[in-house]
Amino acid sequence: MLKKYLIAPGPTPVPEKVLLEMAKPVIHHRTDEFSATFQKVSEGLKKVFNTSQDVLMLAGSGTAAMEAAVINTLNPGDSVLVVNAGKFGQRWRDICKTFGINYSTIDLEWGQSVKPEQVEDYLIAHPEIKAVLLQGSETSTTAYHPVKEIAEIIKHKSDTLFIVDGITSIGVHETLFDEWGIDIAVTGSQKAFMLPPGLSFIALSDKAWKFVEKSTIPRYYLDLRKEKKSQANATTAYTAPLTLINGLAVVLDMFEEEGLSNVYRRHEANANATRAACKALGFKPLADVPSNAATGFYVPEGVEGGKFVKFMRENVGITYAGGQDHLKGKIVRVSHLGYHDAFDTITAISGLEMGFRKFGADITLGAGVAAAEEILIDYIG
Amino acid sequence: MLKKYLIAPGPTPVPEKVLLEMAKPVIHHRTDEFSATFQKVSEGLKKVFNTSQDVLMLAGSGTAAMEAAVINTLNPGDSVLVVNAGKFGQRWRDICKTFGINYSTIDLEWGQSVKPEQVEDYLIAHPEIKAVLLQGSETSTTAYHPVKEIAEIIKHKSDTLFIVDGITSIGVHETLFDEWGIDIAVTGSQKAFMLPPGLSFIALSDKAWKFVEKSTIPRYYLDLRKEKKSQANATTAYTAPLTLINGLAVVLDMFEEEGLSNVYRRHEANANATRAACKALGFKPLADVPSNAATGFYVPEGVEGGKFVKFMRENVGITYAGGQDHLKGKIVRVSHLGYHDAFDTITAISGLEMGFRKFGADITLGAGVAAAEEILIDYIG
Repeated sequence: MLKKYLIAPGPTPVPEKVLLEMAKPVIHHRTDEFSATFQKVSEGLKKVFNTSQDVLMLAGSGTAAMEAAVINTLNPGDSVLVVNAGKFGQRWRDICKTFGINYSTIDLEWGQSVKPEQVEDYLIAHPEIKAVLLQGSETSTTAYHPVKEIAEIIKHKSDTLFIVDGITSIGVHETLFDEWGIDIAVTGSQKAFMLPPGLSFIALSDKAWKFVEKSTIPRYYLDLRKEKKSQANATTAYTAPLTLINGLAVVLDMFEEEGLSNVYRRHEANANATRAACKALGFKPLADVPSNAATGFYVPEGVEGGKFVKFMRENVGITYAGGQDHLKGKIVRVSHLGYHDAFDTITAISGLEMGFRKFGADITLGAGVAAAEEILIDYIG
Repeated sequence: MLKKYLIAPGPTPVPEKVLLEMAKPVIHHRTDEFSATFQKVSEGLKKVFNTSQDVLMLAGSGTAAMEAAVINTLNPGDSVLVVNAGKFGQRWRDICKTFGINYSTIDLEWGQSVKPEQVEDYLIAHPEIKAVLLQGSETSTTAYHPVKEIAEIIKHKSDTLFIVDGITSIGVHETLFDEWGIDIAVTGSQKAFMLPPGLSFIALSDKAWKFVEKSTIPRYYLDLRKEKKSQANATTAYTAPLTLINGLAVVLDMFEEEGLSNVYRRHEANANATRAACKALGFKPLADVPSNAATGFYVPEGVEGGKFVKFMRENVGITYAGGQDHLKGKIVRVSHLGYHDAFDTITAISGLEMGFRKFGADITLGAGVAAAEEILIDYIG
């Protein structure tokens, strides 16, 4: 008997009541019934983004929203700066490349976070930069980038956009879209939003909408002008992923009930507990400035990380994430995202303790759990 | 956000694939389709009971099957011996009383298991005894009774039945109905069988079926003669609880896949790990001969057990069981039943550690988990 524990940074477990909502018979999307849900959900998303702007919903994963951000605001030949600090920084770069946008990169070692002054210095030296593209949380390295501080640098430049991939930061770390002065933020359904993959969200500032008017890149499915017009009328331009949006209505009710500050506090407590456990067990952390979405650390000496992750998934039932690219086999990433509570963290750590011991590492069983409990005891109950 | 963990000895968590099976559209019960499932399930139940007898299914909880055992085989004025070692021993006594059966009891302190010689001595002194009624596992005290040894004493007496409430022992401890010489065994769906409550099972030996012929207690719904006849034709006398039986088909497939010996081994590993954790944390066990269904222990000095159980359920999300009757407020019972794996045990223990510490007990956080992991590490993977 193998119970399954999904403790990788996306997709994440979906709450039972959300699954049940999505299992209800499908209704038609051009109806007052669906429009009422759509409207309610639109309002709820604004609260999570902390914006008065429309938060548009797209039937596509987070990458669709990332592409939409680029192709709706930039033009071939534009110069942009990409913070390249991991797999998803590379994705910004690759999207820009695809559409003929001139990208420069600030290349960081995986695990490092960009320093605001690195961006500032670059912009002073290169006033032609039309956009800075960044991850709020770089999922491949579990590092958090200083979104607020970089927004501060860019917010008064009328000809430069600040575009944030918030896929594993929005709903995890409080993100004040309007107040900080973010120009575009995107996120996906399968992370903090506790839904299956297939739905993504994007918000644009007034400044970003001005860029949209001047963008000439051909776009049809991901044309945000059409979506803005449709969604202002409580519907989508093309067929809405309506079961996901019905599920989202339940998720937003859950956020409301828990309180958004408690959602952030929960992620923080589970992240802090996991970091304390890693420290107690002697695992070296990957990120200098860790995200509360997930905790990455180097596997103990002598353990092949890929084999460990496979064994834990197939033989023990726990799905952790391993490393990507040059970190393949070298790290493990433990998620704290979404429908994940204190005992998911305990399970994750207990699994690491027993699993690594099985792989020959020198582990004091219970030491990580004890360190985690010292933190979680103040969070539960 | 409060995730729910059901760690009480019944009802127990239902596996996702069983829930999905039971959520399928309801079919009619007088159909070849349902009869095919019924037949398959009947064969599977025989394997769990280790019997060549029919294992009859009743639409009712375990108590219905307990009553059926009594009213189908005994007569008013018959003398029987009830091993009264807890809440469910009392239930045998109360059922006998209701139907005018003369019961004597071996009264044991809660937590003790009966000794085979106590039963043997009683039967020698009282040759008129028509039946001995026992719990395999007394859920209220988490004690296991020596079913095999007592069967050995009774099996050659043609005028005495051995009636076993196996509600929390069948599917937990290997039970060899035919080989040991049990005459009647009953169990319910919501324990090791990983189903919702509402379905119960009962098997009778040839000796017991002879008693049925001579029993005069009026019975209609629980008349096993009618059920035997109907179920030999792959249907039930009255409307079958067909979603539960469809779910049971999936459960029996899961048993087959895991292997019944591994089902017992799983319960044993989780029980041993919990006992080791209790020992490490200094909790005094309740049972002398513990069952692998659940582990009961006295709460630490100064803690009010009822408040603890309520707090853990309502504020932390973990449902343990407290004590009943005179043990109310004094003990906690942790289940190992059914769809429960190593990490449910870790969650249960971690919850006890943090919860009791919150209630002011002197707990070394992580000590129980460490002791449990030392045992579970050989079980997982």
